[in-house]
Amino acid sequence: MDKLILNEGSLGVVNVGLEAFTADLETQGVAVAQVAWKPPLDVDKKAVDIINKHYATLIEKANTEALKIINAGKPVLIGMGLAIDTIPGMHKDLILHAGPPITWDKMCGPMRGAVIGALIYERRASTPEEAEVLAASDEIKFEPCHEHGAVGPMAGIISASMPVFIIKNETYGNLSYATQNEGLGKVLRYGAYSPEVITRLRWMDDVLYPVMSRTIKHLGQIDLQSLIAQALHMGDEVHNRNRAGTSLLIRQLAPALLKTMENVEDTTAVLDFINGNDHFFLNLSMPACKAVLDAARNIPNSSIAVVMARNGTEFGVQLSGTGNKWFTGEALVPDALYFPGYSKADANPDIGDSAITETGGLGGFAIAAAPAIVQFVGGNASDALSYTESMYEICFSESVKYQIPALDFRGTPLGIDVVKVIDNNLVPIIDTGVAHKNPGVGQVGAGVVKAPVEPFIKAYEALAKTFV
Amino acid sequence: MDKLILNEGSLGVVNVGLEAFTADLETQGVAVAQVAWKPPLDVDKKAVDIINKHYATLIEKANTEALKIINAGKPVLIGMGLAIDTIPGMHKDLILHAGPPITWDKMCGPMRGAVIGALIYERRASTPEEAEVLAASDEIKFEPCHEHGAVGPMAGIISASMPVFIIKNETYGNLSYATQNEGLGKVLRYGAYSPEVITRLRWMDDVLYPVMSRTIKHLGQIDLQSLIAQALHMGDEVHNRNRAGTSLLIRQLAPALLKTMENVEDTTAVLDFINGNDHFFLNLSMPACKAVLDAARNIPNSSIAVVMARNGTEFGVQLSGTGNKWFTGEALVPDALYFPGYSKADANPDIGDSAITETGGLGGFAIAAAPAIVQFVGGNASDALSYTESMYEICFSESVKYQIPALDFRGTPLGIDVVKVIDNNLVPIIDTGVAHKNPGVGQVGAGVVKAPVEPFIKAYEALAKTFV
Repeated sequence: MDKLILNEGSLGVVNVGLEAFTADLETQGVAVAQVAWKPPLDVDKKAVDIINKHYATLIEKANTEALKIINAGKPVLIGMGLAIDTIPGMHKDLILHAGPPITWDKMCGPMRGAVIGALIYERRASTPEEAEVLAASDEIKFEPCHEHGAVGPMAGIISASMPVFIIKNETYGNLSYATQNEGLGKVLRYGAYSPEVITRLRWMDDVLYPVMSRTIKHLGQIDLQSLIAQALHMGDEVHNRNRAGTSLLIRQLAPALLKTMENVEDTTAVLDFINGNDHFFLNLSMPACKAVLDAARNIPNSSIAVVMARNGTEFGVQLSGTGNKWFTGEALVPDALYFPGYSKADANPDIGDSAITETGGLGGFAIAAAPAIVQFVGGNASDALSYTESMYEICFSESVKYQIPALDFRGTPLGIDVVKVIDNNLVPIIDTGVAHKNPGVGQVGAGVVKAPVEPFIKAYEALAKTFV
Repeated sequence: MDKLILNEGSLGVVNVGLEAFTADLETQGVAVAQVAWKPPLDVDKKAVDIINKHYATLIEKANTEALKIINAGKPVLIGMGLAIDTIPGMHKDLILHAGPPITWDKMCGPMRGAVIGALIYERRASTPEEAEVLAASDEIKFEPCHEHGAVGPMAGIISASMPVFIIKNETYGNLSYATQNEGLGKVLRYGAYSPEVITRLRWMDDVLYPVMSRTIKHLGQIDLQSLIAQALHMGDEVHNRNRAGTSLLIRQLAPALLKTMENVEDTTAVLDFINGNDHFFLNLSMPACKAVLDAARNIPNSSIAVVMARNGTEFGVQLSGTGNKWFTGEALVPDALYFPGYSKADANPDIGDSAITETGGLGGFAIAAAPAIVQFVGGNASDALSYTESMYEICFSESVKYQIPALDFRGTPLGIDVVKVIDNNLVPIIDTGVAHKNPGVGQVGAGVVKAPVEPFIKAYEALAKTFV
């Protein structure tokens, strides 16, 4: 990914970007070289001087502290509750969404669709048209999940009546939240709001939630760190591949589901539902990362990213050393592998809080543990290793809990250091699904995509200002 | 494993044997080189001439046919039954055992222990002393599992009343059988026969068997090929690591367990039992391989091994081209990693039918899919790759169903060709557990061990004779 291997004098194609495309060209017999050329970064010179002055002392010290906290974090699932009773600051007129702050008029198609679905689900509107009017009015407020300790995949919509998982960082006591994963197809998080979507959400309230809630209560807690660590040994990176995580979760839940059973039909339906959805574990791996990273917020001088999140319009970053400020840039349309019948023209710009997994050293950063994903998008196992290896260059440290078997059980790259991002001109990769730009169509592709550089430049410059 | 990388003039240690030991020495700072020196093989010259004469024509053609059958095999779990009602030729006085044929007087400690346990379990004896007298009498007959379409791990004892899984090779219609896995600790297959062992076996008859039997009946069948293929993508090689296979099995069983439930206590106990035993899937991966390989028996001229099995005294091989003849040699004491408190002096020679997994392109042959096992015995991920890569040298082909992610989803090495074993002087590796030589102690180690060469020489020479 980061090597210059062009032979002078040879004729071929130079690919600037994803190596998967290099592989594609190679299979077509085209001579090709992967090149690391990047446009020079437009970073304020004064900021560079300030950061360089303080990096080896104040910044590294703060980052060491941040990584100590992140590596010491221990996320456990401790229970469930309704969003309104559970998430701090939640109220009946508030809708939480993925990514940095955004207003209704700027929201992308899938996020608007999910808001419409949520208002129908909340019985605040009976038609999509009514919902749109209500969403555009002052009555409904929108705030980022991240500002309430929550995370949501894709549109990431959480409304007051939705049940959420409660995750605790056992080491530091802070909590995080996420809804239950709906599965694939027509689902709210991809902006669908048809009756089948609302019906499924109600079943999740009436059946899935009470059954899961009783089961978790019976188990006391579920150690998510252990499940994630095992899943990485079993071909998952817990962002785009969660088959092992979901399997291990079912294995842990099943005996307890039985012990707490009230009726066979509901328990069977719950098992069938989770069994039918390999992504069920995503809505636990995400808040697990959130709980761990939130404990490392607000460490003065630290250049470590504690949030990367996209609302489908903008990509936002937060640093430990710059408090609750968001640094944003335009969300990019992924250069992904598109499903048959779809192309980049159909794709919504990058969306979802799921990049919290990359921020936590998982997802694209751990993709060497999940070569099947890279194969799916046209690459091979060595591309998967290269992706992960390149991320060590922009991370301050490595995970002491999460390992990659193919790299001799080396810890995953952990702690995105905005200074290293800028110094190396190398942005984080995110291993993501791609939503159709229109509400309700669903997933149209998947790929290993790059973050835009703009939010990292802004974050870097803002960190520099804290030293003035 | 098979490379000469000694630098002339440098001073160091030359390791002949397992690379894991090279790695050990390296961590101790000793310069070391892995060397492929092997003693010359004492193979009959005339046999070599005959085999060389026919290899490129008759033998390769027969092997192509054998591999076509093996690759086309499709093992599915179709039900359960008691051994006496199910296994062809089973009768109340017959005890099946692992490996090639053996008499009571020649049996090793763990196999004797398991026979004693089986006779107590069958209520044919009430004390170990009574059981020994009975076992030594003419009343009790001993025959290999393999001669009845069955396989058993370690001692591999199957007696008349034991429930067995029934596996069908859907493509060819043949059946295979294995008991339910007992878990670790004091278990019959390691030669234990204490009351707790017998009590567990009775619980497996009275609770596990009927529950599992109903569940499988409800499901119709379980596609073992699909589970094994997925497990290889999830860090298992389905011999010494079966965590993914067991997890995926639980996932498939759980909803059906509920739908067929007669009482909560039994169903919960069954789920807890399987959940507590990561090796549960081994007793399905083994007969899955057996069903596939049995379909490729009796192809004249074929030099492909259809059985490798050890009875703890001898290591036996059967070839497709030489009918039901066993070719045996002394079973070796594994150079394994021993658990604390144990050494090679405590170890029983290699034992069990589980080498059917290697014969079917799994286990040690697929260990590149399960680097955690190699790490456990002191090696690293590249050792795991080397082990698998070396096995391609002695295999006639590759699996079209079972893939190794770290080798870019290359098919596992499949179809051990005795001609290649002899020509390359390279024996199969087996990724195995090690039993204590005394009955009832249990597992004392694990390792990647080599088959003895003697059975392969005998098989090679016997195949040559079929052309005379």
